[in-house]
Amino acid sequence: MRVIVAGERDACKSHGVYRLEGCLRTIKAGKVETHANPVFSADEGAILRIDADGGFANAAFELGAPRLVERAHELGMAALVINDCTHFSALWPEIEALTDKGVAAMAMCPSYASVAPSGGTAPLLGTNPFAFGWPRKDQPPYVFDFATSVAARGEIELHRQAGKPLPEGWAIDREGNPTTDPAAALEGAMLPFGSHKGSAISTMIELLAGVMIGDLTSPEALEALGTTTLAPAHGELILAFDPTRFANGRPGDPFERAETLFEAIAGQGARLPSQRRFAARKKSLTEGIELSAEEWSMLERLKEKGLAAV
Amino acid sequence: MRVIVAGERDACKSHGVYRLEGCLRTIKAGKVETHANPVFSADEGAILRIDADGGFANAAFELGAPRLVERAHELGMAALVINDCTHFSALWPEIEALTDKGVAAMAMCPSYASVAPSGGTAPLLGTNPFAFGWPRKDQPPYVFDFATSVAARGEIELHRQAGKPLPEGWAIDREGNPTTDPAAALEGAMLPFGSHKGSAISTMIELLAGVMIGDLTSPEALEALGTTTLAPAHGELILAFDPTRFANGRPGDPFERAETLFEAIAGQGARLPSQRRFAARKKSLTEGIELSAEEWSMLERLKEKGLAAV
Repeated sequence: MRVIVAGERDACKSHGVYRLEGCLRTIKAGKVETHANPVFSADEGAILRIDADGGFANAAFELGAPRLVERAHELGMAALVINDCTHFSALWPEIEALTDKGVAAMAMCPSYASVAPSGGTAPLLGTNPFAFGWPRKDQPPYVFDFATSVAARGEIELHRQAGKPLPEGWAIDREGNPTTDPAAALEGAMLPFGSHKGSAISTMIELLAGVMIGDLTSPEALEALGTTTLAPAHGELILAFDPTRFANGRPGDPFERAETLFEAIAGQGARLPSQRRFAARKKSLTEGIELSAEEWSMLERLKEKGLAAV
Repeated sequence: MRVIVAGERDACKSHGVYRLEGCLRTIKAGKVETHANPVFSADEGAILRIDADGGFANAAFELGAPRLVERAHELGMAALVINDCTHFSALWPEIEALTDKGVAAMAMCPSYASVAPSGGTAPLLGTNPFAFGWPRKDQPPYVFDFATSVAARGEIELHRQAGKPLPEGWAIDREGNPTTDPAAALEGAMLPFGSHKGSAISTMIELLAGVMIGDLTSPEALEALGTTTLAPAHGELILAFDPTRFANGRPGDPFERAETLFEAIAGQGARLPSQRRFAARKKSLTEGIELSAEEWSMLERLKEKGLAAV
């Protein structure tokens, strides 16, 4: 719930209350362990490993994060592997939990096969989110979190629900032809961002956060579930870096030097990532969160009928 | 020399003999230490650190690579930081040296300010290459190495030398307007690949491989040199991952599972990255390397006149 509320607070609709139905559908289908008990399954060198016990990834992350930060301080860098989790949330809440503790962090995971590799014609890669954060003093971190598809699947879902056509270049249909119809896109394949470069990064995520950590790749996750309407089961890889250990006493404090870079970016009128989200957060924290009539009626329906409503 | 020959062998012209002039110009300008003695300056936890002593990065990498591989096997993951180096080569030769030893690897470095951040109007970020590799048995690795600008600076240089206009969307001129003139682009700014997403990755590289490792960012590297015609001085960050340690005995050999993914990509007609380069390599290794008349005359001129020719 915390990450869904955080999504609404930050006006990040594609990870807001709309996700509730998907989570409940996944529970109803018996595809997530609701009484999961995540545990540390290994801890060697720079790699911490949590078995999420088939539950949502969030509880596993919360268990692993403190030790990940500690290990990053100790060795300079550490990895948290989450295995056997069900994933529905954005990665930025995890990244921000780590930057709040003073480490830089990178996170990635597969999803399910819904994106065609560059030059391909059929879904194979996931929307494979890639996120990174850098701590900033007395203000929200530098953080980005994006799908390696041109758009997030959630955005295409929202277009479908709103009956709006997609921008060109987002997707191909089942025959591999370009389409702007969200329903045809969901049946066909999305396209990677930045053509072959985004496709390469998405493939890297399948390798590092799927194959390498011994968990499902996006095509395997789809095969295991047989549908894209439930939250996917796979693993996740999170890396944490201690900037002070990496700087090793060389001239210039890394956190201050980062501010110089951020000022130079903002100074020429370019926007740092997540600024719209942070502005929405500021507003939500004073004025509260607004939900649409449709969202309220969905919540009422779910409250009344529970799993029978999904 | 080895990486320049490798560039020609792989028909990777932007990192071939054309780079020689730039290297010699950098030597002539006294901006690289030709008798550099790279040394391990620190070795703690997961971070190995080499002071390149102002020399080209290659010697520092060759010194650090064996211990990086060893440490990755030991801890599961390790980082090699190279400080105070001059950089002219592609990253894939380093990635391939690591995948040859059975580890997955990621490398990144700043360059000099020549790319405008997404939404900006002036050069600030570097072309900041990002490279990744995964070992494959009995064949060249899965490897990509790309500039986080739409195109590499070397490609724009080659367009300028050939008198060809740039494709649209590669660059803006000094006033921040779109341009297809390579000379105007070199005076203005290149654009990041994948709009705000590529811009975010490029910024991450400035943070991790510039600020975090206590070395120059791209704007600082440009300020230090005062020109973009010499090879830039900065640092480099290389991460190595031991897939066997990460898989930790979970079902499925990670190297075999990766092959399944590669087959699925190639099976739908999409190309794995670097395949053109590997095909050129195969040809070069049997038929030798062909240089153009211009390249030969440049080599003759350099051989005859040495530093006086640049």
